[in-house]
Amino acid sequence: MPLPLPLRQKVPTRAMFILLAALVSVSAYTDAGPAGSTPAKPRPTTTDILKASAPSDWRALDPENTLYLELASGRVVIELAPDFAPHHVANIKALVREGYFDGLAFIRSQDNYVVQWGDPTESRPIKTAKKTLTQEFSTAITKDLPFTALPDIDTYAPQVGYSGHFPTARDPAHRKTWLAHCYGMVGAGRDNDADSGGGTELYVVIGHAPRHLDRNVTLVGRVMQGMELLSTLPRGTGALGFYEKPEQNVPIKSIRIAADVPAEQRSHLEVIRTDTPIFKAIVESLRFRGGEWNKVAAEHVELCNVPIAVRQQQ
Amino acid sequence: MPLPLPLRQKVPTRAMFILLAALVSVSAYTDAGPAGSTPAKPRPTTTDILKASAPSDWRALDPENTLYLELASGRVVIELAPDFAPHHVANIKALVREGYFDGLAFIRSQDNYVVQWGDPTESRPIKTAKKTLTQEFSTAITKDLPFTALPDIDTYAPQVGYSGHFPTARDPAHRKTWLAHCYGMVGAGRDNDADSGGGTELYVVIGHAPRHLDRNVTLVGRVMQGMELLSTLPRGTGALGFYEKPEQNVPIKSIRIAADVPAEQRSHLEVIRTDTPIFKAIVESLRFRGGEWNKVAAEHVELCNVPIAVRQQQ
Repeated sequence: MPLPLPLRQKVPTRAMFILLAALVSVSAYTDAGPAGSTPAKPRPTTTDILKASAPSDWRALDPENTLYLELASGRVVIELAPDFAPHHVANIKALVREGYFDGLAFIRSQDNYVVQWGDPTESRPIKTAKKTLTQEFSTAITKDLPFTALPDIDTYAPQVGYSGHFPTARDPAHRKTWLAHCYGMVGAGRDNDADSGGGTELYVVIGHAPRHLDRNVTLVGRVMQGMELLSTLPRGTGALGFYEKPEQNVPIKSIRIAADVPAEQRSHLEVIRTDTPIFKAIVESLRFRGGEWNKVAAEHVELCNVPIAVRQQQ
Repeated sequence: MPLPLPLRQKVPTRAMFILLAALVSVSAYTDAGPAGSTPAKPRPTTTDILKASAPSDWRALDPENTLYLELASGRVVIELAPDFAPHHVANIKALVREGYFDGLAFIRSQDNYVVQWGDPTESRPIKTAKKTLTQEFSTAITKDLPFTALPDIDTYAPQVGYSGHFPTARDPAHRKTWLAHCYGMVGAGRDNDADSGGGTELYVVIGHAPRHLDRNVTLVGRVMQGMELLSTLPRGTGALGFYEKPEQNVPIKSIRIAADVPAEQRSHLEVIRTDTPIFKAIVESLRFRGGEWNKVAAEHVELCNVPIAVRQQQ
């Protein structure tokens, strides 16, 4: 029998997906190499590819479209998606700038689904922003909207890929595209009416991608750092995971737009670009994983299983 | 502008997926109804279908293949999958019966990936069980193995569906089937050698389905109740989410086989059968969701987005 490696190294890591609160590096990436069903020539791993990246393969988060959600446990960094939900993004920024969210709370945590924040008492007035907006469930495919298609089929959409670091789906026949409900995506809750949301109450996906919500809710952005502060919130025991007692709510100290925060207090993050040869190489390294551990190559990669590397700005 | 319903009802719930620790009922199911792209005739919701179910649409968990993992926070119920990993299941039961796991701990919690338990000091002797086993990554498709195919395509496998309440993938051309890494699935960690696992160290999927692990690790079962006790474990800050300090480990009081536990201390659960017309109706209610909230039907459902209802035995 072969001598086992230390037990603590069992089970490989998922390629890092904006997971680590403090440490943002590429070192947590899954390694890959020759797969059982593939030729013996070692394949580059995701780690190899990222190590060989150039500064131009990365882009800094846009401070004007980055939110810092401050909890007692730390900071959650969210990048907004104005290309997909311009009116919701503008309204959320207006809400942030009028201080609407400061002192509100997470009021819901439903296992394998979403956490959600809002006004626990539903009494806070809105000053300059709007309470509701026309839905932005999907948008037109245009030449200006960047898109890198993934090579594999998707259960839910004719085509999927990445627009910037956002997972997106497309229906080329109808020239429509929309953001996809992957882990860490942020959306604007709404009531039964399609146009009843506006950004006052937002949710974050903390479980397996609920893709059936695609085109049913306006997605507005993605958590880029601090997901673990949200995914470990105690689950609510009320219906839909709502907290049943006010003292269970998890207070939000503040939400700020990065551009409004002094430079020395900002989280200076950069994200891998998805319109580059390096990104295509990363996708291949996920479809055919190398390294000693992998025995059978998946030969495919699903939209929400493509990690988007985030690191401290270099 | 339409009058919004109470904010607390925003965003629909994912159909209940063995989520609730104490309350196991069908009431948390997402409702569905006429979708935007479908005829006006109201469709039955998952809730409707489950309410109309007969006792014969459910089956009790098999006490001989059910584990109770006892934590300070409560009980996690796991059903083992002897049809897919007979030797690993037998070995895990031997480990349980010799008390191997009692007093061990969760040593790893990696966001959007897995939690893992084992022997923190790697010093506990094994009495009658085996340390390692030949891998059971996949098994032959046979007539005896129940299987209900899902109607939609899958990114990773030629065919997917349910064998009992286990999500499975199939390659009919090669007559092979394997368990799929959906949320809540339990697997046997291993080192680089395919045959270096055996069940002494087990992991549970707590994030988006890492389907690239399929056929690379032996899956042994599924968490049927208590997932929220695992998914909220503090994330480890070491590499791969391992806890860096011994005091961060989360102790396991004991693991018992349900058959060995006095009847009055058992969790009497039953699970919806997947070889019934009702299950096919549930799948359709997920592909074309009704209810007031849904605007666009997904028209598809992915393997790991099919909730398997669990309830107290009636």
